[in-house]
Amino acid sequence: MSSITLTSPLDMHIHFREGDMMNLVAPLSAESFAGGVIMPNLVPPVDNLDRLLAYKTAVFQAISPHTFDPYMTLFFRDYSEAELEAAKPHIIGIKLYPAGITTNSEGGVASLKDAEQVMARMEALNIPLLVHGETDGFVMDREAEFLTTYESIAKKFPNLKIVMEHITTKKAVSLLDQFENLHATVTLQHLIITLDDVAGGLLNPHLFCKPIAKRPEDRDALLEAALNAHPKLSFGSDSAPHPIHKKEAAGCAAGVFTAPIALPVLAELFEQHEAVNNLQAFISDNAQRIYGVTPPQKEVTLTKTPYTVPQSYGNVVPFKANETLNWSISNIA
Amino acid sequence: MSSITLTSPLDMHIHFREGDMMNLVAPLSAESFAGGVIMPNLVPPVDNLDRLLAYKTAVFQAISPHTFDPYMTLFFRDYSEAELEAAKPHIIGIKLYPAGITTNSEGGVASLKDAEQVMARMEALNIPLLVHGETDGFVMDREAEFLTTYESIAKKFPNLKIVMEHITTKKAVSLLDQFENLHATVTLQHLIITLDDVAGGLLNPHLFCKPIAKRPEDRDALLEAALNAHPKLSFGSDSAPHPIHKKEAAGCAAGVFTAPIALPVLAELFEQHEAVNNLQAFISDNAQRIYGVTPPQKEVTLTKTPYTVPQSYGNVVPFKANETLNWSISNIA
Repeated sequence: MSSITLTSPLDMHIHFREGDMMNLVAPLSAESFAGGVIMPNLVPPVDNLDRLLAYKTAVFQAISPHTFDPYMTLFFRDYSEAELEAAKPHIIGIKLYPAGITTNSEGGVASLKDAEQVMARMEALNIPLLVHGETDGFVMDREAEFLTTYESIAKKFPNLKIVMEHITTKKAVSLLDQFENLHATVTLQHLIITLDDVAGGLLNPHLFCKPIAKRPEDRDALLEAALNAHPKLSFGSDSAPHPIHKKEAAGCAAGVFTAPIALPVLAELFEQHEAVNNLQAFISDNAQRIYGVTPPQKEVTLTKTPYTVPQSYGNVVPFKANETLNWSISNIA
Repeated sequence: MSSITLTSPLDMHIHFREGDMMNLVAPLSAESFAGGVIMPNLVPPVDNLDRLLAYKTAVFQAISPHTFDPYMTLFFRDYSEAELEAAKPHIIGIKLYPAGITTNSEGGVASLKDAEQVMARMEALNIPLLVHGETDGFVMDREAEFLTTYESIAKKFPNLKIVMEHITTKKAVSLLDQFENLHATVTLQHLIITLDDVAGGLLNPHLFCKPIAKRPEDRDALLEAALNAHPKLSFGSDSAPHPIHKKEAAGCAAGVFTAPIALPVLAELFEQHEAVNNLQAFISDNAQRIYGVTPPQKEVTLTKTPYTVPQSYGNVVPFKANETLNWSISNIA
């Protein structure tokens, strides 16, 4: 196999940020992806319709002239039914962060019990719930500990579409098959790395993210689900740019910047595991079906031509910086 | 309790380095400690008597005019009986590193089977074996996986004194009680931190070390053993300075620099847990008995007077930089 053509690739979890950072990173996604889910954890968060519409306008300015559908999200709070009804045509879902669990999540949900009324309203209006599913427990256990919460929400609101964002554990993969209304996204790095890559040799701040990369058996389960294009799993890069001075620092911010190299790396990974035929489903078809979206037409052709990842994009160091990939994007139409 | 006097505190695991770094860090240990075990993983390693004696001379120059006994170690290799006999009066033990497992350990032991002949010679000559006990497995499992190796060496060489260096797991603590010839050191940071402190919030390169900090239940077991002055456990800081540009970097070197603040932090920790009466045993008496050493007399008095840890010593950022400790050293005599 020397060429792969993907139709309308989607990235169902992206951090576009704002201002200069958005101007840097948003075009890098919009060039090769046909659409993506834009996270709302800005400062202040995107938690009302005015802010969301203004942010969407800024996104369109940043990605111009690329064709790209930004699927907008609201930051979970106690929304009224009227607010949800007004927001519904403009959003793909509402993102719930337990308070303080990741970058700019300080205003997140402190008690999931208190969130149930809004979940019921979302269920009634058929608005998906996207969740950063971690407890505040020991870092390696946070996702596994949160799974009972997913179970309880899934049972209590059987018609609420729930997306377990950026899953990192074998247990989360297993849970996908137990509840019809549970779905998931998985990042690029969690298909490839484990905690060993972050902290097993020299410490690598550029691979530090939340949820943190887990054990080899977790990575293997995620990879298997992706390679098989598990029908309830979508690609969501969680591409999260931070300037280099916030990564190579005493207190290193969480996030791996993968958007511009995600498609070549996925091509390499799926080819290596003889699963190229499943890449279209993983990168777009599953998401179209799960979220009910119809992205703009975009044909991305990748060829088996070596490509060396830049050391940085602006002041952001990407995943696999300076490494040479076997695949590269040769045409976008 | 407002003052604690410690007699001849010992640090049974220190990295003094060489050159400028040794001139910076060695006096900081020698000021408040009466002696310590000096690690041999230099480049090239301290693996012959000439190099060891020259290094010892350099250590004495660096610590002058402080009174401090440097207990020297050789880097494990295939030593002949004659070499071991010649070295014995000058060393406290031989340090075994599995190849490539930590800083400057590339020349370590690739096959433990091949090391047995030297271990037999060491046993016959009553030379202690100090071990960096990690496999090359998943980073959180490396010490636990190595415990069977400790067991097998302890059984095969019942008269060989073995020190499990810088233990980090509850399982290693348990192993102490199962073999008479097994002993251990524990660092300052492993009594205090878990992986959560390294990678649970922002990533903290200054808390990254090998073995990596483990789970809360591991930290609790280590702390309990230290607070009870477990008779087979000595304090060994594993104080491991790296210049700031090697810590706050894309590839961060492993090591926490604790030597200059170890005694105040231990005073605070033992007082907080109402175990001050056991600190003398943990910080000196156990080591004197286990290693058969008689350090120079040094009385270190600590008082409950707040002390703010410097942001750096030279170009090295210490553990608890900028934090205010409740205890400080008020007199050394």
